[in-house]
Amino acid sequence: MSDYPIDKTNKVKRIPKRGYYDRETIYKVLDAGFLCHIGFAIEDRPFVIPTSYGRDGDKIYLHGASTSRMMVSLEKGIPLCLTVTHLDGLVLARSSFHHSMNYRSAVCFGTAYLVTGEEKDTALKIISDQILVGRWEEARAPIAKEMKATTVLCMTIDQASAKIRTGPPGDEKADYALPIWAGVIPCQQVWGTPEADPLLTEGIPVAESAKRLVAGK
Amino acid sequence: MSDYPIDKTNKVKRIPKRGYYDRETIYKVLDAGFLCHIGFAIEDRPFVIPTSYGRDGDKIYLHGASTSRMMVSLEKGIPLCLTVTHLDGLVLARSSFHHSMNYRSAVCFGTAYLVTGEEKDTALKIISDQILVGRWEEARAPIAKEMKATTVLCMTIDQASAKIRTGPPGDEKADYALPIWAGVIPCQQVWGTPEADPLLTEGIPVAESAKRLVAGK
Repeated sequence: MSDYPIDKTNKVKRIPKRGYYDRETIYKVLDAGFLCHIGFAIEDRPFVIPTSYGRDGDKIYLHGASTSRMMVSLEKGIPLCLTVTHLDGLVLARSSFHHSMNYRSAVCFGTAYLVTGEEKDTALKIISDQILVGRWEEARAPIAKEMKATTVLCMTIDQASAKIRTGPPGDEKADYALPIWAGVIPCQQVWGTPEADPLLTEGIPVAESAKRLVAGK
Repeated sequence: MSDYPIDKTNKVKRIPKRGYYDRETIYKVLDAGFLCHIGFAIEDRPFVIPTSYGRDGDKIYLHGASTSRMMVSLEKGIPLCLTVTHLDGLVLARSSFHHSMNYRSAVCFGTAYLVTGEEKDTALKIISDQILVGRWEEARAPIAKEMKATTVLCMTIDQASAKIRTGPPGDEKADYALPIWAGVIPCQQVWGTPEADPLLTEGIPVAESAKRLVAGK
């Protein structure tokens, strides 16, 4: 897959060997999650808001209440930045200076447009699938009133970069002789046992989508 | 503890009952993590960059390479937004529309100043402690060259809000009769077994700080 255009906006300046600009790598980082942080500015003041997303090619769909400030602001087509970060571990070096983290992050730039009609239905299913595959089919579909209360936006990725760090610490040569433990403490997001709604009608089994998620499938 | 001033910048508009403005709640969200997303704008273009932080009262310390664009930009005192998000679970409702997430997030607004002298040493220890208590004392302390290569900034929180959702889904009255499973799939960040650096000198035991983290202490 091709690369996104590179300029000062998305160029990874610090430790350039950790930077990636190809769609394959960036899609992989985006597809490993469903929670992003959206950045936008109103009157020079930046806002960073967590929200869910769904990807389809270079399109990233977002949804929210029609009355939300973020949705109302982004609908105007102002520049936005969408960042997804996965923390994979703490990197403990012998020196404080070389401590680091293992991570995968993607920073995407673009503007959003309002999604309507058939694309809106498709987009909502794409977001739902990104969060939990199969749930869309299990749940009651949205009715007209609910669709009206929901704004869906699409951001086309104009530019993007990923930054990835893996592996053990890198210490100063002389420090390898120090009697200090060094290595990686890995971390990951783990799903627990589904907790039924206390108001759930008796006898309804746990949703297949939830079972698959917990089983890591 | 007192509240942050509330105006349109930090007011939680959507589902106001989930909004908090008191320092106690906001500090708790900040202290439960060490990874934030920083938002700032350069020539009207927003950037959202993940980075670590350390909190001391209303001061949030950030560090990075002196050459990093983010550090160079923020050092000028431009407005910034610092957001910390913890995902606690997926909330599966009977209707697609009422699906949600359980989460704790804090959105903080302020400007940063360059930290120097003694405050710089203190700040680096605060950041290190926020990530992994006790590691600062285990590792080799920074030398002058390393201190010079590191920029430390302090953001004083001028305004902030937290948004928190907990508990089971809230469905439309009529939907409770549907034969659809509803509930919460909890999730958390879990630390794995520390992996020693392949270049570690034989016989050095795993760091106490790492052992405590993995044991959840």
